[in-house]
Amino acid sequence: RLISLSARMAKSKFEYVRNFEIDDTCLRNCYIVVRLDGRNFHKFAEDHNFLKPNDDRALALMVRSATSVLEELEDINIAYGQSDEFSFVFKRSSTWFRRRASKLMTHVASQFSSSYVFYWGEFFSDQPLLHPPSFDGRVVLYPSNRNLRDYLSWRQADCHINNLYNTAFWALVQRGGCTTAQAEERLKGTVAADKNELLFSEFNINYNNEPSAYRKGTTLLWGRTDEASTKKIKPSNGDERQVLVTRSRRQVTTHHCDIIGDQFWDEHPDILEPDD
Amino acid sequence: RLISLSARMAKSKFEYVRNFEIDDTCLRNCYIVVRLDGRNFHKFAEDHNFLKPNDDRALALMVRSATSVLEELEDINIAYGQSDEFSFVFKRSSTWFRRRASKLMTHVASQFSSSYVFYWGEFFSDQPLLHPPSFDGRVVLYPSNRNLRDYLSWRQADCHINNLYNTAFWALVQRGGCTTAQAEERLKGTVAADKNELLFSEFNINYNNEPSAYRKGTTLLWGRTDEASTKKIKPSNGDERQVLVTRSRRQVTTHHCDIIGDQFWDEHPDILEPDD
Amino acid sequence: RLISLSARMAKSKFEYVRNFEIDDTCLRNCYIVVRLDGRNFHKFAEDHNFLKPNDDRALALMVRSATSVLEELEDINIAYGQSDEFSFVFKRSSTWFRRRASKLMTHVASQFSSSYVFYWGEFFSDQPLLHPPSFDGRVVLYPSNRNLRDYLSWRQADCHINNLYNTAFWALVQRGGCTTAQAEERLKGTVAADKNELLFSEFNINYNNEPSAYRKGTTLLWGRTDEASTKKIKPSNGDERQVLVTRSRRQVTTHHCDIIGDQFWDEHPDILEPDD
Amino acid sequence: RLISLSARMAKSKFEYVRNFEIDDTCLRNCYIVVRLDGRNFHKFAEDHNFLKPNDDRALALMVRSATSVLEELEDINIAYGQSDEFSFVFKRSSTWFRRRASKLMTHVASQFSSSYVFYWGEFFSDQPLLHPPSFDGRVVLYPSNRNLRDYLSWRQADCHINNLYNTAFWALVQRGGCTTAQAEERLKGTVAADKNELLFSEFNINYNNEPSAYRKGTTLLWGRTDEASTKKIKPSNGDERQVLVTRSRRQVTTHHCDIIGDQFWDEHPDILEPDD
Repeated sequence: RLISLSARMAKSKFEYVRNFEIDDTCLRNCYIVVRLDGRNFHKFAEDHNFLKPNDDRALALMVRSATSVLEELEDINIAYGQSDEFSFVFKRSSTWFRRRASKLMTHVASQFSSSYVFYWGEFFSDQPLLHPPSFDGRVVLYPSNRNLRDYLSWRQADCHINNLYNTAFWALVQRGGCTTAQAEERLKGTVAADKNELLFSEFNINYNNEPSAYRKGTTLLWGRTDEASTKKIKPSNGDERQVLVTRSRRQVTTHHCDIIGDQFWDEHPDILEPDD
Repeated sequence: RLISLSARMAKSKFEYVRNFEIDDTCLRNCYIVVRLDGRNFHKFAEDHNFLKPNDDRALALMVRSATSVLEELEDINIAYGQSDEFSFVFKRSSTWFRRRASKLMTHVASQFSSSYVFYWGEFFSDQPLLHPPSFDGRVVLYPSNRNLRDYLSWRQADCHINNLYNTAFWALVQRGGCTTAQAEERLKGTVAADKNELLFSEFNINYNNEPSAYRKGTTLLWGRTDEASTKKIKPSNGDERQVLVTRSRRQVTTHHCDIIGDQFWDEHPDILEPDD
Repeated sequence: RLISLSARMAKSKFEYVRNFEIDDTCLRNCYIVVRLDGRNFHKFAEDHNFLKPNDDRALALMVRSATSVLEELEDINIAYGQSDEFSFVFKRSSTWFRRRASKLMTHVASQFSSSYVFYWGEFFSDQPLLHPPSFDGRVVLYPSNRNLRDYLSWRQADCHINNLYNTAFWALVQRGGCTTAQAEERLKGTVAADKNELLFSEFNINYNNEPSAYRKGTTLLWGRTDEASTKKIKPSNGDERQVLVTRSRRQVTTHHCDIIGDQFWDEHPDILEPDD
Repeated sequence: RLISLSARMAKSKFEYVRNFEIDDTCLRNCYIVVRLDGRNFHKFAEDHNFLKPNDDRALALMVRSATSVLEELEDINIAYGQSDEFSFVFKRSSTWFRRRASKLMTHVASQFSSSYVFYWGEFFSDQPLLHPPSFDGRVVLYPSNRNLRDYLSWRQADCHINNLYNTAFWALVQRGGCTTAQAEERLKGTVAADKNELLFSEFNINYNNEPSAYRKGTTLLWGRTDEASTKKIKPSNGDERQVLVTRSRRQVTTHHCDIIGDQFWDEHPDILEPDD
């Protein structure tokens, strides 16, 4: 009993270690971007027989996991993903978790990772998950709308460049009979126009007709849908009857469009908060 | 084609946004502690019918997930967990991920979370997982062995205090017929000695005989086990024969002992690196 | 000789300590404000017989020191000072000292402090400097023009409130025969209108006619002045003659105007860089 | 009057900008080193005719300014300087200015700089100060006694290497009739032994007999001195008489010894706090 009595005293004696925690509050009035990247995903994709150059199941699972992040965490206005990465943008005025960078990024990384395993079976019905995957994250702050848009443009331009390369590469390997080394050699030094030409002339692929999910990645936004349902009501002075009830519900929506140009932003004026 | 040609130019135009990333390298020669805490775990425990005050399945799943972190990530010398929290201690000399705090904590949070879902079924065979759980994380640096030991002592003292309270609380509710409000009232203002006495006199529970996993939490260390296997060899000048091969393998070991006193540290002199 | 030979080896052995330096680069595209505050300036003012409520010599010396900061350091677009404080605003696009916070703030603090002593005699001809003064500094980042203007407005509103109080307080003491305690008591709970009224009715002071340097503080900007000088030239095919040469020179200019309203910013459109 | 009434409201409206300040508390239980370096001191030395390779007046002024820092600020246990740099070491347990890095380094930079100008005339009686000098600063944390000693050793090894080079270089120029380019060429690729040999054989200089202030730099510590003074006392029952009063006073002491080896630290056991 003496031992347990002193536990509280012991605890208070040790509690000074809390003061070693460092404040990592994000600067106010900046967009907070959390980007996740798959760890060793090249090997993970091989282990789980992902199709090349794009595996629809894997992409859909990434989007499902990211949607879970938007639904569970607060204040994310837009998210953008491609390949094994996803970026989540918190409102510049967000005070979620008192803007502490560590809380924000670990929560996103955690929710995304647990969702990835949780929803795996919905997308990979024939392919068991062999080991738990891992994603690393980082926080980057952007002070202006222009900076944030340029960040997202950077990721989408990256998506385009990689996907065009991968489309050409795997066409050469899968349909052109090249080894991977030969395919690499063929593409060395080529610009985008060359790869478009090669795809068209050798494989009759018009790159611009490839699925936009591959070429543009996936953008997640909040939208509203009307949900209609019937409800029985019984007025005090009348008979029970059914009425149609329409409820507007907030919902994550999925887009595979260009987010570099102005059109997307003109059509969704609520994503950005004014530079002020 | 013009559009795709300009993608690379576009990308390089946007790439300046990389410079907004801030360096968050952890100070050298300090222990790096990453602590995870379950988010809304009170509700999560209710939703999944966790037993009170301790659910062996839930504790074992925490330990299994933490073990996965040790196995997959590098340079963690010791980990300590209790309830819905787990602390991971990176070597003070670690250069893993160039000591970048964001990488370290998101990797731990991610690996732990995906493992929690991945291994769920091994421990909760009759209880399906209803939604993906989330854990938040933080990084704290400790410059000296004393500081690190005091941190771990703080967590173990916390475990003790909470578990004693919870043991008494749930004994009153489950066996003493109290409502939760009544149990709370009974325990208000009591010290450890009172709770020990109450448990013993009213419920014939000797708290010190409760499972050490509940009272002390779980400490994970690296140990070595010898693995024996037989191997066929065929010398060039002889007949094939079987030999017994013993291999020493690094393995995570589980402990439920006191880590506040000196004995534990004397017995495991390799956990700490000298203050130098 | 052996000893000196080994010095270089010794140095390289110790050089690892450089890696303990932490990067403190300021977030891009934010205004960097360095604010200095006098340390123990109440006592310093007493020791050096500063006049109350405002000492023109002391204010002028502050402005002279701040001017020296603008002239010696780069990329400061505007500075604002009042009482014993001065704020320096670096351009949001500045890359001076690679935006390292520690370099920026120590340089400002150092240049200001050495200038304060260097120029003391110019302003305090009859009052020797008794001991070297000290100023502490801090860095604050502002992501938008609105935020920066609000910062400067905050400081100017502070100037107004303090100066009105001090003007009333010292009128009561110096001309109204109050003790300092009595003056404090008289002003307790009064609002600005009360103090204006008191000054006018009891001391015939129209506060709005007080020097704007007291009421508004001092704003420093970069301006251009034309400097005319004569120069002898001797064309190859002619006689030597004198010509008048006008050169535009960048120069720090001093203002005591309102910087809260829009007029100041409309008149000086070059101070702010667009929110982009 | 309306305008002034609204000033307080205005101020509170703007006050949100305070929340943009970032906490920069230094990690507990680490030594806090603030190092100052002269800015453009090569040119400053030329402008003020500093003697080469060492100017006793300039070194003494550096030491006087550093002494002023120790006397005015708290919790500095040791300081080390050479050439145009000085390092100040705050106690690892210091809570001065709540360990805020910005406050610590700006205060040191400010006090040092104002002292440099303030005391200039004491050391440079014939050489007026032409313009205010500037020093930049940085903060570095060291978690262990070994790390701190290695930091100080690194600076002293640097002192040794630079001073040996400069002694040889200026001997060649001032006494050997070399141009600076020729001297540079002569020393290219030489090791310490070569420079010692050159000094001895060509200029009859035994480097080890050079003043230790040049070879070892200057270390500042706190010591105690007994101050004797006479005081008149008048006992109630007797005649007034004089007594000798000895008072122990804390005082900055100056050392030019080796601080790399153990002897210095053995002789001054109070500088370091235990690694705990």
